[in-house]
Order: sequence, then structure tokens, then C-alpha cells
Amino acid sequence: MERKIYLEDIPLDEAWAAWRGALAAAGLWRPLGVEKVSLAEANGRTTATAIWARLSSPHYHASAMDGFAVRAQDTHAATETNPVHLTLVEDFDSNADSGLHPAKAVNTGHPLPAWANSVVMIEHTQPVADEHGRAAIEIRASLPPWQHVRAMGEDMVATELVLPANHTLRPVDLGALAGSGHTAVPVYRRPRVAIIPTGSELITAEDAARDGVRPGQIIEYNSLVLAAQVENWGGQPTRWPIVPDEFETIQTAVREAAANHDLILLNAGSSAGSEDYTAHVVQSLGTLLVHGVAVRPGHPVILGMIDTVTRWQGDKVQVDHPLTLSPPHPVTPSPPRPILGVPGYPVSAALTGEIFVEPLLARWRGQPPYQPQTLTAVLTRKVVSHTGDDDFVRVAVGNVGGRTLATPISRGAGVISSLVRADGIVRIPRFSEGADAGTAVTVHLYRPAHEIENSILVIGSHDLTLDLLAQFLAERSNRRLVSANVGSLGGLVALRRSEAHLAGSHLLDPETGEYNVSTIRQYLPGQAIVLVTLVGREQGWIVPKGNPKGLSGWADAARPDVQMVNRQRGAGTRVLLDYELGKLGITPEQVRGYGREEYTHLAVAAAVASGTADAGLGIRAAARALELDFVPLAHEQYDLVIPQVYFESDLLRPLLDLLHDADFRTAVAAMPGYDISPMGHTHLVALPLMDDA
Amino acid sequence: MERKIYLEDIPLDEAWAAWRGALAAAGLWRPLGVEKVSLAEANGRTTATAIWARLSSPHYHASAMDGFAVRAQDTHAATETNPVHLTLVEDFDSNADSGLHPAKAVNTGHPLPAWANSVVMIEHTQPVADEHGRAAIEIRASLPPWQHVRAMGEDMVATELVLPANHTLRPVDLGALAGSGHTAVPVYRRPRVAIIPTGSELITAEDAARDGVRPGQIIEYNSLVLAAQVENWGGQPTRWPIVPDEFETIQTAVREAAANHDLILLNAGSSAGSEDYTAHVVQSLGTLLVHGVAVRPGHPVILGMIDTVTRWQGDKVQVDHPLTLSPPHPVTPSPPRPILGVPGYPVSAALTGEIFVEPLLARWRGQPPYQPQTLTAVLTRKVVSHTGDDDFVRVAVGNVGGRTLATPISRGAGVISSLVRADGIVRIPRFSEGADAGTAVTVHLYRPAHEIENSILVIGSHDLTLDLLAQFLAERSNRRLVSANVGSLGGLVALRRSEAHLAGSHLLDPETGEYNVSTIRQYLPGQAIVLVTLVGREQGWIVPKGNPKGLSGWADAARPDVQMVNRQRGAGTRVLLDYELGKLGITPEQVRGYGREEYTHLAVAAAVASGTADAGLGIRAAARALELDFVPLAHEQYDLVIPQVYFESDLLRPLLDLLHDADFRTAVAAMPGYDISPMGHTHLVALPLMDDA
Repeated sequence: MERKIYLEDIPLDEAWAAWRGALAAAGLWRPLGVEKVSLAEANGRTTATAIWARLSSPHYHASAMDGFAVRAQDTHAATETNPVHLTLVEDFDSNADSGLHPAKAVNTGHPLPAWANSVVMIEHTQPVADEHGRAAIEIRASLPPWQHVRAMGEDMVATELVLPANHTLRPVDLGALAGSGHTAVPVYRRPRVAIIPTGSELITAEDAARDGVRPGQIIEYNSLVLAAQVENWGGQPTRWPIVPDEFETIQTAVREAAANHDLILLNAGSSAGSEDYTAHVVQSLGTLLVHGVAVRPGHPVILGMIDTVTRWQGDKVQVDHPLTLSPPHPVTPSPPRPILGVPGYPVSAALTGEIFVEPLLARWRGQPPYQPQTLTAVLTRKVVSHTGDDDFVRVAVGNVGGRTLATPISRGAGVISSLVRADGIVRIPRFSEGADAGTAVTVHLYRPAHEIENSILVIGSHDLTLDLLAQFLAERSNRRLVSANVGSLGGLVALRRSEAHLAGSHLLDPETGEYNVSTIRQYLPGQAIVLVTLVGREQGWIVPKGNPKGLSGWADAARPDVQMVNRQRGAGTRVLLDYELGKLGITPEQVRGYGREEYTHLAVAAAVASGTADAGLGIRAAARALELDFVPLAHEQYDLVIPQVYFESDLLRPLLDLLHDADFRTAVAAMPGYDISPMGHTHLVALPLMDDA
Repeated sequence: MERKIYLEDIPLDEAWAAWRGALAAAGLWRPLGVEKVSLAEANGRTTATAIWARLSSPHYHASAMDGFAVRAQDTHAATETNPVHLTLVEDFDSNADSGLHPAKAVNTGHPLPAWANSVVMIEHTQPVADEHGRAAIEIRASLPPWQHVRAMGEDMVATELVLPANHTLRPVDLGALAGSGHTAVPVYRRPRVAIIPTGSELITAEDAARDGVRPGQIIEYNSLVLAAQVENWGGQPTRWPIVPDEFETIQTAVREAAANHDLILLNAGSSAGSEDYTAHVVQSLGTLLVHGVAVRPGHPVILGMIDTVTRWQGDKVQVDHPLTLSPPHPVTPSPPRPILGVPGYPVSAALTGEIFVEPLLARWRGQPPYQPQTLTAVLTRKVVSHTGDDDFVRVAVGNVGGRTLATPISRGAGVISSLVRADGIVRIPRFSEGADAGTAVTVHLYRPAHEIENSILVIGSHDLTLDLLAQFLAERSNRRLVSANVGSLGGLVALRRSEAHLAGSHLLDPETGEYNVSTIRQYLPGQAIVLVTLVGREQGWIVPKGNPKGLSGWADAARPDVQMVNRQRGAGTRVLLDYELGKLGITPEQVRGYGREEYTHLAVAAAVASGTADAGLGIRAAARALELDFVPLAHEQYDLVIPQVYFESDLLRPLLDLLHDADFRTAVAAMPGYDISPMGHTHLVALPLMDDA
């Protein structure tokens, strides 16, 4: 088994410097070329040169109003009491001194006759007859010259600069270009980007939907993400079919791509695993510049340059490495092509796109790298980073109690849903080893700041109803529900720290049989808190289809032949389990798998579905979702714990309204094991101040 | 001549309410429908429903590292001094108690064998032989269960919410959808928008480029701007060919458009002019809701609904007004279609798009109206607004001396270049009659705030070299040159008010023969100012080709047969003219056209080119630009006046560097009448503090 074990750890800036240097040496650290496109196709493209006006606009003196063209000097005597009459004409010879004071009807945009120098609005005239009985207009105020006249060149004068180079064209720019005599515009050519997914374990989403997926098979979607990124950044992506892990096959795909693409993204095969061919392929076809960058996620990035020449044989393009070139053919050398080995984990792949592809495509559009909107936020949890790496931490962002908070979400490089949910990203610099809770950090935002102002942060226990709430809120309002699952107790702690607007909680007080109240009094002393019941629900054993081990009660948790999966400390479900086991005198040591902690009901169900656990305590809906069986053990109440100040806020109004919405209630009731009868029951938890003295 | 003179003035919110009401009544104030598109085509589209996971991701327990799958319990005894050996296996039967401690090589993504529950990284192992001589690994630390395992559903659990409805899809979202078992996604159908330009005076940009334009002809480009807007806002535009001003022809075009478009934009013909057919066409085919909205620019907006039914005859679609419907045909009624009469002036047209089209298209995408980034800025000049109208004022925005400033730019509805140059727009509410200089206003930005931070504001005299500077800066740096032409003196006043970073000035001191110094001392007392010469240049009479009136010297300004055009008060060119005329004893009253003021050299040249003036004082390059002749009269020096604090700033560095750049100097020298030998000459103007006492 031959494996390369260590990747080189090159800091991000050095990696970029090496690549930029190689690109510059190849003449590729600048836009790749210019093409002329018609204005109808130019929206969003970037000007490759400055554009100068060919025509003036307007290109003649034009009436700016509906009215009459006149000579200002003919109106000097006009006053309210001494009106002047101007005779309507079609043509007028200003050299023949006819004594006539002419006026010619003009509409907006009509050319001003050569003899005229002003326009009177039709509203300021009365139709009359002049002293010879000819049609005329009467005016009762004098006009200055050039009144209501759009002078030639008022907008743009021929030869004036209309747009500079490197300007990304917006709708109004197209108007200015057409108005100044252009029909087409020179723009930078769009780079062609080949995206090659490699890996014998990969299958397409279409194949997965048709044939199902087997363990070990992975649905290939990085190429979809990378292609959409390339498209958003002004490139033209080409998605290759999946290439199996065979050196020759990958090499051939890269050669073919290099023949007519400006950049090659070779996905996966860049870990140190046995399928790692990317580095060898790059070495075999050109120069391997960087193998491994000190960033997380994204570590095993590969940067290189492919040296290709293109050999034309009739209509067919063949590409060869210089060393294997056969001389008799006509040879057209093509420039070296940059190649990026993109890590296989989806979060690493997407971030590698942002870090390495976007700045290059921006450069090829004559633009600086994208600068996201940023804001400063307070980190709610400690982040521990690998020393020596720049660490890109996904965060959820929200405003609570006047503070902007950044809460780290999943660090896993395989968790694409964490990028979907992320509001932004925080870069923890290398050698800082992380950042403490309470640190002010700069968040590079993934969504507009105003959306964050409309975010409702719910932290605490997980319930599937929260997903429905999120969906209904998105459809019915501009509010966005951002939830984090840390268990009921974690939610109360988050409220105490002012890190959430509300918490989901189902903490049973064994002494009173009441839910939540005593724990709230303990954790949130002296605060006015409103408890709003979201839903009643069933808890029980989630077991495989057919309940093969025949679980029936709490005591089964201690059976030596039953492998359990548990929830994390502080979860209401765990409190319930501990309470019931305690009543039976069962200790944690007696429960196999007590230490295996999952953070959601669905994760518990997933553990059972995969066969690694025989049972776990959870809600019926989670069992049903994964087509498992369910042994009901208890009814419980799931509440929303809301500080009064947020309960009365506009921010939460749409959420609270939903609890009384028939459609929402119907949707919740349709989920198995849910009881909507208590939904919306509200009571203020009376909270005497604790005596601190 | 029958003309409708007055338009109704309906306030913006009432106009919108009327239209929204009619749209809601027709069931059109909501997304128009749903279509399912493949993930490869879904980037940027908006989800029409919530999307739930079909598969868990991962759908099996997967190794998260390259290494070996093991049982954690087999490693409990391992320490640095007491290594444990695990035997390499391919298969293992956990029920047969063989005493074997198994390990299986796995790579990242491989499924965990059913008997295993943890993964040890390859870096933490050594290859050895076990006690029977079989291949094994040695480990020197114990492993917890589930180490380096991506548990089934770690990313997403089947049935979990992946994305809510009304979510605009980004690249990573496509990955999450594919990873959770989707190949396509239901998105809102893109609305089809017909854009119909009307006007017998209109010609296409292509015709203009081929055949030239005659006075009275106008290049049609509003449809280009509106189509690009519609595209950016998620619609599918169809540009109609230009429709002449004929009632029946316009009516036919609208009927055809209504047959298969969701929205009709009927451009121009919406002023009160004689070509005003839009209102009548709307009335003839449906309901005219609003005729004239109290906004500027954009006043003559028309809002209405077309009542159509579609009559199918074989393959041909015919559209009829209900009244003219012939009963024997099979009839498919189609919903009413909203129609918007878009004003003809380009700025009005573009703003009408922003005000009326964008919010409707947003609604049809399930989104709230676009919320631009805003900032608060201080208005540098008084704005007078028409009472009763909401006034949308285009502004240039920049940061000078720590203040963010909004400077109103051209108010003309025909000046599309003003929208090109605008950094944002300020809404002056109706009945406020305007806003004073110094007022804090909210600017809706047209460009990212960070671009504004990189803006260099130059206010003062106009010179064509500034256009070249803008072009080179855009190509060579991230700086943006924003210039306003207010004459030399106006520039110094702007510096005094801290409204610009530098000013262009060529103010001759008649007593010393020096440029700028004495006036700077007068206007900017006590300030450290650096004077940097931009260029030397020729001033003279700009005259028609062949100099038909034979102008040769300053005295010709007073000839009774010569019609002049002048520059505005405070312009260096005007100072020069006044100085030279004064030396000859010529008074303004003796100069015909002395009172006709233009703000730039090119505008003076345009006046001469159009034949409305025989001559004007200006620079040779302006004469050459419009192919006019030039009678040289004087050499002068054009300086950049820069407060020392900005002269030394990073902001201006790229601009000052350009003055010593060979390419830039060559480009300036190529313009006629320019002398680059003094370019970049720099001297600090010594400025004794004025005695205010």
C-alpha cells in the first residue's frame, strides 16, 4: 500500500504568490482577450477599453417640452397685462424681415427650427388669431433664450468619455452606449473553465435518483457547485462526466480540457488517500506549484500549470504533452493552463472556489477580487483552530438585544448544509490558535445585512416543528428563522447570555411534573419570561422496523443485548431519560451506548436506521421520518421560552401569529405523534428576584 | 390639433395601491406559477416550495479520514509505552469470537464496516506484524468511539428541511439539494415581459450607425435598458421592434404582447404630446388605472390592466378584446395583463423600471422589493423640488475629510449619462419643496459602499485630460475619478467647503501673469495647498470648419455679425475672456451671446457645431473633437489644486503617479493643443494665515 502521508503546508498568501507568479510569467495574470458583443448581449459584461461617444446626444437642439418654438427676443414685451401674439408657421425665413413673430408647434424631442432659440410650454399659451386673422398663440410672459431646449450634447458630446475600461455594464450603461452612437461594445472574453470530477466512488444525482445509492457511493455535486460559482463569477463552465480513479484516464481528461479551456478544476483525488492522482497528473503534464495549503477547510488544495500544445488534425483537436509531440503535424502552441486541484469535501470545494477561483476570474474580468459586505460581531462560542492554518469558520449572525452575534456552526468539511445555513464566514488567522467567546470578529457576509436584521434566533432543543415554522415564516413574511440545536438547557443558557431571541425547551421538573418553569427560574432569575407552548408530543424508543429486540418500557435501556444511542447532556430528552432511569435505579454504567451522544432526534433515528444502535429515546416523528418503529413511553410539552421584551417585539410577531394560523396548525398536526391542542397557550412566568445578598 | 394638456398627479403610494389592488383582484399579486428545473439550470432561481431531504447525507457511516476502521474497545489499553497491535482484515465476523482485534484500511468516504465504530488516522499508525506474523498496525493511543467517522445523516437527515420556499438558489444550495437526493427543484416561473417601444421619431442604434441620424430622429435605447433591467430582476424580456405612432398599430402590438406575456411595458407616447396613444390604447383594451404619477423624473407614468382573451385557431394565436370576440371559436380566456406606460425620457424610463417594475417582478419571485444599501450623506447643494412630487435626485457620493457627501448631478430627465455617473439616488419627499445644502439625506446606493471609499472627487474646471485620468485610473487601480464641472472658481469654493479632494483650475491673475496662486490665497487662506500642473494647453476661438466669419483675434468678439457662446461665471476660460476683452475696452453688452453660458469646452464646441453660435472661447481639443476649426489666442496652464493632506494620502497616490507615467503622458500628448512638458510640476503654495483680527 503506497500512500503519500504528509501534504506540504504552504500558507495561503505564499500559495497565492506562487500561483500568481506562475500565471504572470505565462502572461495569464490579466484579462485573456477581448470580444465585441452587441449591446443587447452586453448586460453584466465588463468593458475592455474606455468607450468614447461617437455621436452627441441629443445630436441636435431639441424641444424639451410639448409647446411652440419661438424666438426669445420676440417675447420680451410680454406681460400678464400686455400679451404678445406669435403667428403659427410651418417654415420661416429669418433673413427675410417679414415683421412676423413666428411660433411653430413642437413636441418633446422635436428639433428646434434654425430660426428659434426657445420653447414656450403649451400650458402657457392660448390659441388666438393674429391681426391678419392667422392662427396664432398668445403668451403673457417673456422667455429667456434656451428655455425648454435640450441643447445638442446636453447629455453627451461626441468624443467624450462615456465609460471607462473595466466597467461592468449595467442597464443604464447600455442606454448611454446606444445614445452615443454605439451598437456593440468591446468586453473581456469570458474564460472557459473545465470542471472535472474524479473518483470511482462517485455517482451522479440522476443515477442515484434512478438506481439508489449503495454504501461507499457518493453523489457527485461539487461540479454543480463549482459550475454555478464559475457562472456567477463571469466564467463559462464545462462540466466533465465523472472520471474514474485511473491515472491515464484522468491525464487524458486534463489534456482534453487544456486544449480549449482557460482554467481546469480537477475535483477530489487531492487528499492523501490512495485515489490521489491529481498531483501526479499535474506533475506529468506540467508544473506542480503547491500541494497542500494551510487553510481549513480546504487543506489539500493543489495549484499547478499544465504545459500544453495543441495539434490540429482536420476537425479534430489533439492535445499532447510537449515530450510526446510528433513533429510532422502542424503545431499551434497554446499557452500554459492553470490547474487547481479542488479538495473533495464539499465545504472545502466551495471555499476553495471562493479563495482561489473567484480572485482569478475577477482578474480575468479586469476587476479586483470580490469584497463581501462585512460586519463586526461578537463570537458566542470559543473557536479552537489548528495552529498554522488560516481557519475559515462558518457562522450564523443575528442581532439580539442590540448586539450583533456570530455563532459558529458545524466545522465539518463534509457538511454542505452548514454553508447553506451560514450567514457569513470568519477568518481566524494562522498561529492565533482560535478565538475566545466574546471576541469581536469580522464577518464576511453571505447575505445582505438587512436580512440579518430580520433574523429570529432560536437556540435550544430540536423539534421538527421548528422546520415547519421556518418554512411558513419564509413564505409569509420577511422574517428568517435561524435555529441552533444545543438542547433545552443550552437554550436557556443562550437566553441568559442574550444570544437568542427565544429558546425551545422541554425540561421536566421531576418534583412538580411541570415543564420548564423551575429551570427557567433557576437559569433566568429576575427576568420577565413568557412561556408559549409550541406543541405536545410523544417520546419513546426509536427502534428498527418490527422492533426486533422487543423493547417495551424504560427498563429495556439496561438490557445487555441492547445497544443504545443517547442525546447530549442538557437535552430535555436526556433529562427525561435520566429521570425515568433514576426512578428504576438504573445507572448510566448499566446502559450500553449511554455515552454515544447525538444532537437531534433525527440523528438518533439515523443511528438506529444505520444499525449501529438498537434504540434511542426520541419523538415519534423522527422514527416515522426514517421509516422506523416507535415504542411510546411518555407525553411531554415543548415550549418556546421568550423574554418578554422579544415577546412584545415586531420581530417575533409573525412567528407568534403562526401559532394561531390554521394552515400551520394543520401542517404540524399532520406529523405523527404531535398534539396541537396546547399550541399557543401562553403564560407569563412570574419571576421573583433572587436574593443575592 | 387635439391635445390632452393635463395629466393627473397621483401620489406614488396611491398609484402603487391602485395597481396592486388591480393585480390582487386579478390574482396576479403573487408568483405566477411553478416549473421544475434541473439543478444544473437552477442557479439564481427561487424555490417555489420548501424542499425536504429525500436521502440522508452521508447515507451511511463513512470514514472521515484516510486510515483504518477499528473497534474503539480494542484500543482502550493503548498508550505511548504500551502499544496495541490490530490485525489487518478485509472481512470480519464480529459474532465469531476469534480473539482477533481487527483493522481495515479505509480511505476518506469509505463506508465503515458494520463491526467497526471508529477510525484511526494513518499518520497515527505504524505497520507491524502481529504475533502470528500477519500484517497489522501498531497504535499508541486509545480511541473514543465515533472518532473520525462521518455518521449517517451528519450533514442532512432524510425528511429534514433543506431549503425553505422563496429562497434564491446559490451554488452551495445546489450541492445540498443534490446531496439530499434531488435532481430538480420547483422554482417560480420566470415572468415574460414584453417591451414595446413606440414613436415615429425613433430609429434603432443599428440604423443610426449605418445611415446616420437626422435632426428629430432619436436613437431608441429605452427598450435595451428596460430589457436588461427585466433580465436582472428575474424576468424574460421580449423586445418588440419599434412601433410607429399609429393607434391601430400600437393597439395590435399590445394585443399580441398580451397573448403570451405577463407584463407589458409600452414605452414613450406617454407624455401629453400629440403622439400620446398609450392611455387611449390601454382604455380601448382594458382599464386605465393611473395616468400620471407625482414623481420626478417619471411623471407621465401610466398604469393599467389589459383584459384579453385568447382565441386559438389551429396553430395561430389570435387575441381579441372581449367586445369584438366572435363566439363560434373555441375560447381560452387568459388572465388580465398588467400594462405600464413608461415615459419616453431615458432617465424617467429607467427610474420607472426601478419604481414600478422591480417590485412587481420581485413579488413574482416571492421576494420583497429590492432594498439597496443605503448610507447617510450631507447634501452639498440646495435641491429645489416641485411641490407635490416625490423627487428622485441623482447624486455623486464621496468621503472628504471624514464626511460623506452627496452632490446632486444633472436633473435632466433626458440625461442618461447622469444615471451612469450617479453613485446613488436621494428621494426628496413630496411637499418638502426640496432640501437645503447641509441636510443629512439617505442615499440609496447604486454601487457598493467600498467603491465610494475609493472615489477621488475632483470638482472645478473641465479639461479633457480628466477623462483620460479617469480611464487610466480605472485600468490601473481600484480608484475611481468622480468629476463635476463647475468652473475653476467653483472648484476652489468646493475645496474651501471640504467637498472635494482636489480641484482643476486655470485662473489667470492679470496682475502677476501667474496661474491660480493669488486666487487660492484668497479663497483658501491659511491652508497648505499643493499645486500640481496637469497640462499646458491652447485657448482660442472655436469656429465652424473653414472659419467662415474670418475670426482672428480677441476683438472679433464684439463684431455685430458674430454670435458668441460663452462659459459660465467662475470658469477660468471666462476669466481669460473677460481679462482680454477688458484690455481692449470691450464690455459684455457689446458681445452678442455673452449671456449664453455653457459649462464645458465640449458644450461650447457643440453650440458652434450646431450652428447656433459663430464662435466661443475654448481649448483646441474640443474644436478638434467635433471637427471644427480653431483660432489660437493664448497658452495657459491647467493645474490640480490639492490640499496637502490629500496630496500625501494613499487615496490620491495612484492619480499622482499617473502624471509621471509614460503611457498616460503619451495619451495626453496625442490630443491636439496639449503640452505635457509641465505635467507633474509640483510646488507648495506658501500660505500665510490671513489676519482676521
